[in-house]
Parts: sequence; structure tokens; C-alpha cells
Amino acid sequence: VTGLDEFSLIELLRQSTPAADRLALGIGDDAAAISMPGGPELLLAVDMLVEGVHFSFPEATPREVGRKALAVNLSDIAAMAARPLAAVIGVCLPRGRAAELGLELHAGLVELAGEFDVAVAGGDTTSSTGPLVISVTLCGEATGRGPVRRAGAVPGDWLMVTGCFGGSRQRHHLDFQPRVEEALALHRAAGLHAMIDVSDGLAADLWHLLEESGVGAQITAESIPIREAALHASDGRTPLAHALADGEDFELIFAVNPADGQAILDSPPTDTPLSRIGTVTDKPGCTLKMPDGRDVPLEPLGWRHPLSGP
Amino acid sequence: VTGLDEFSLIELLRQSTPAADRLALGIGDDAAAISMPGGPELLLAVDMLVEGVHFSFPEATPREVGRKALAVNLSDIAAMAARPLAAVIGVCLPRGRAAELGLELHAGLVELAGEFDVAVAGGDTTSSTGPLVISVTLCGEATGRGPVRRAGAVPGDWLMVTGCFGGSRQRHHLDFQPRVEEALALHRAAGLHAMIDVSDGLAADLWHLLEESGVGAQITAESIPIREAALHASDGRTPLAHALADGEDFELIFAVNPADGQAILDSPPTDTPLSRIGTVTDKPGCTLKMPDGRDVPLEPLGWRHPLSGP
Repeated sequence: VTGLDEFSLIELLRQSTPAADRLALGIGDDAAAISMPGGPELLLAVDMLVEGVHFSFPEATPREVGRKALAVNLSDIAAMAARPLAAVIGVCLPRGRAAELGLELHAGLVELAGEFDVAVAGGDTTSSTGPLVISVTLCGEATGRGPVRRAGAVPGDWLMVTGCFGGSRQRHHLDFQPRVEEALALHRAAGLHAMIDVSDGLAADLWHLLEESGVGAQITAESIPIREAALHASDGRTPLAHALADGEDFELIFAVNPADGQAILDSPPTDTPLSRIGTVTDKPGCTLKMPDGRDVPLEPLGWRHPLSGP
Repeated sequence: VTGLDEFSLIELLRQSTPAADRLALGIGDDAAAISMPGGPELLLAVDMLVEGVHFSFPEATPREVGRKALAVNLSDIAAMAARPLAAVIGVCLPRGRAAELGLELHAGLVELAGEFDVAVAGGDTTSSTGPLVISVTLCGEATGRGPVRRAGAVPGDWLMVTGCFGGSRQRHHLDFQPRVEEALALHRAAGLHAMIDVSDGLAADLWHLLEESGVGAQITAESIPIREAALHASDGRTPLAHALADGEDFELIFAVNPADGQAILDSPPTDTPLSRIGTVTDKPGCTLKMPDGRDVPLEPLGWRHPLSGP
């Protein structure tokens, strides 16, 4: 088997994993949701970061890597509009640098955990001759309004985003602020229909939300907020192309009914900028209205980790 | 920093991790326990297996590695006398073999999950040029009697074990049956004071239990049940030495009061063999009574993963 990428493998695994009664939400959302007797749903997110794939030294410091390993999971829990509770860590340290890296990773992770009131509950530490691998599992609990899924957007909904997009490889992917508080505030202020966080890229993750919801969308190019770093890219690609495809923005895309969307814009429940980028349609597919008035198809241009290398 | 092994690093991390109110039990037990409003305590166990450290191909098949990655966590949840609920998986696959290995790992893991009614709730898949790394996080829930900790053994308690010990490197570490049902049945039948599963070795893990409980023990060598594979070892070490130090037995050591211990032996709540190996003492340290009547000190001879290589 060659050329099988991450998404097709996850789809294969999804099909070969038996459904379980207590799984309110299984593989294929930002986090899994597990029904707990007598309590709110429990959410579980897991992300694994690998040296040379998701970060490199010395571009990133070990402390930043520890921070990022938790931050990407916080972003997943935020995408469910849930409260993070506790994290456990599995780490495989490169021999020779093990102790030094371990302590710095831990310091970066614990500092961010403190900011979000997350308990660092335990871990497993090992070492090998391979690259640094860190896997963080974060558990959270749904609010009284329940977790917000990728599925749930309906035609007519506004599509909105937090923050801005593009150019994240210039530091942002290491120092982003997970949108946990924003998600909880939005979920209190409005009945969010669907939500996802942007790790693969605005276009790719928008497509995930649309496909899970079984809807399409019309997006307005001029309404997409672009990060400063993407405005001055010198690689020949437009700022819009960066915003759509760079990924690792760790912002939220969400769908709300128009009245809630307008209310959110009129009295924002958070200081983080909120923008309306388009509208959900019943016609499948996604159209991007360009500044010159043309409608072009928006493809899921996001970044895919190749699983099978050359 | 050199020569820092796994245990000292965990101890350092433990000291530098702030306590959190909702952490009923943090780093340093078989699983972390998290207080959940209105429900039983949530338990989280995490273990990371690394190719070349915890297993090698082709001695182990990918399917066996997937099974083991879940089984070691089931053993941790068993050691708390808790019920396993759901697992999430982080896996870093070696490029080129990614799809083939990923599907086999998953098959082995899902099969064991089915046997223990564990929901496979999600995961994160990536690839690198390094060795295979698989990290499983298993969540479970405490029974009405609460989780059983390593701390809690009191002088006079009987020290008992499930199954037998030694020679686990010959297949047992790949095909062992986690003692989940045994732990639940024992916890129903008796008030277990303290428990741990044996991964590092009978002596090392017994020491962990004694140290966390602040007690000592007198162990009788002849009462230690020895696995068949350890009786015929040809490396010059005695069967007893193998039983004490090999590790990866994934049996349980537990402490109960003598009346409960006798009741358990008289009417075993499980078909798995149960043995009394010694008695908890108030004097710190651990003594091993040899067949010839001599008392020798029992050192924590277990196997330590070296974290900093040469």
C-alpha cells in the first residue's frame, strides 16, 4: 500500500472501529465524546508532535514544543466548546538529550496548563535513538449546552471565524493562544450549530465542517481576515492563498443562525476579533467570491501530512 | 545532566508539577484520578511503546504491538481496581511501512478493546523516519469503593499476588491477559488496601507499593509463584531471580487485612491463581526469607529503562 495519506488512513480506521454505546462521538471530530453516567459528557483529544515533522530544533525551543503539545489539544477541546480539565503526557526523548529536553518540555507544558487551569495528571517517559515524540491527551467536559460538533451547520447559517489566517509558520504555530475562552463565551452567547479548529488550513477545515454537516457554502474572499505575516510573504503566493492553505492557525470556524451571528457582531462576547466569512448553502460544494466579483470553486487546499514517504 | 533514569526524571517532574484541586491522585500511581462533579472519579493511564525499546520486529508482530499498547494500560487501570471505558491512540508510523503497520496495529488493539468493552474513541496518526511509537491513553472510572492506590498498606496486611512471575520476555509480555476482571472481583470481595501492577518487576513494584505506603515487608521466597518459562532459563540466573526481576509480568500485587486474605484464599473470587507471598511490617525495608531459613534483604532489582544512553 503506498500513497495512503493521513486522512485516508483515519477513514479506514474509522470504518474498521466498532461503534460503542458509550461513545457519543467517535473518530472524526476534533475530540471524542464519551457518555458518563450522571455527569456531563467527557471529551478526549489526543495529538502527537514529532521532531522533524511538526517542529524542528533550534527553530523551536524545547519549552515551545512542550507548550505547543498541550496547545494543539486545547484548541481541539475549544472546537467542541468544552472545558479542559486534565492532561496526561507520553514522551519519547532522544537519548543523550533526554533529561535536558524533558525538563524544558515539561516546563513549557506546565506553564500553559496553569494558564488554562488544566491539571497535569501524569505521564510516561521513555527514550530512543529516534526523534523526539510527544503525545498529549487532554480530557475535558462538555458544558450544559453539550459539545459542539463539526456536523450541525444548516443552510442559511452564517459562517464565522475567530482571529486571522495565514503565515502561521512564522512563529504563530508556536505561540498561538488556544481559543478556549472564546469558544465558551460564544457558546454561552449563541447556540453554535457546528465548529472546528483550523489546523490543516482554513479551506481544508472548512471543508471538513461542511462535509460532516452535509452542506455547502459561499465564502467572500474579502471578508477573510489575513494575518500580518501573510501580507508580506515573498514566495509569490497571494496573502489570500496563504490564509486559505497555510494551516496551524488554531482559530475557530463556526456556524450560527443569522440572528445569533448579528448579535455576536453587535455585542462581541470576547475581545478576540470575530468575522463573518460566508453563508451555508444547501447546494454541496464551496464557492469563493473573489474581489472582482467572480465566483471560483474553493477546493480543500489545506496541508496534508504525507504518511507514506518516497 | 547524565545518567538520569526514568524514575528520577519522573520524580523531578512530580516535584515541579503544581498540585491541582481536581486531581484526586496525580503523577506517581498507576493511573491519575480526577474528581468529576456528580460522578465517580475518572482515571487516566498513559503508556508509550517504542520500537527497539519495548518491542522489536519481527519478534513481535504489528498486531501484537497494537494489542500490547492497550494491554499495558488495561493493566494500569486494573491496578486501580477500576473499570476501563475508552481509549485514544497517538501513533507515529515509520515512513514506507506506515499504512501496513497502521492497519495491523489497529486490528490488534481493537480486538483487545472488544474483549474488555473499551471504546476506541479516536487518535492521531503521523509518520516519521524514526522508529514506530505508539501512545495509548485509557480512561476508566472508579467503582463505588473508589480507586485502590499504591499507598494504603498497613502493618499486618497480607501481601498477595495474582498469577506467576518471571520469564515474561518469552512471549508473555506480548500475550498477557490484563487483570481487569480479577481486580474488580477482588475489590468486590475484599477491601483492598493497596495495589500495583508488575511492569518493572516483582521486587521493584513491591518496593513502589511499600514506599508509597510508608511500610516494610517480609516476603517468603518459596511462596513466590514462578512462571514455567523462568524455571528452565539457561542464563545461569535462578528461577527466583527471574521471578523477582524480569518484569512485564503484568500481574497484581495487593495488600489486604489477614481476615480478607484468608477469605480470598478460601473462596477465590476469580479463577486466576492467587497467592500470599508475605506480610506488611512497620519496619521499613524488605526482607526475603530464603528456603534455607536465612533472611536476606530484598532490593528493588527491577528493570529500569535507561533514559540517558552512553
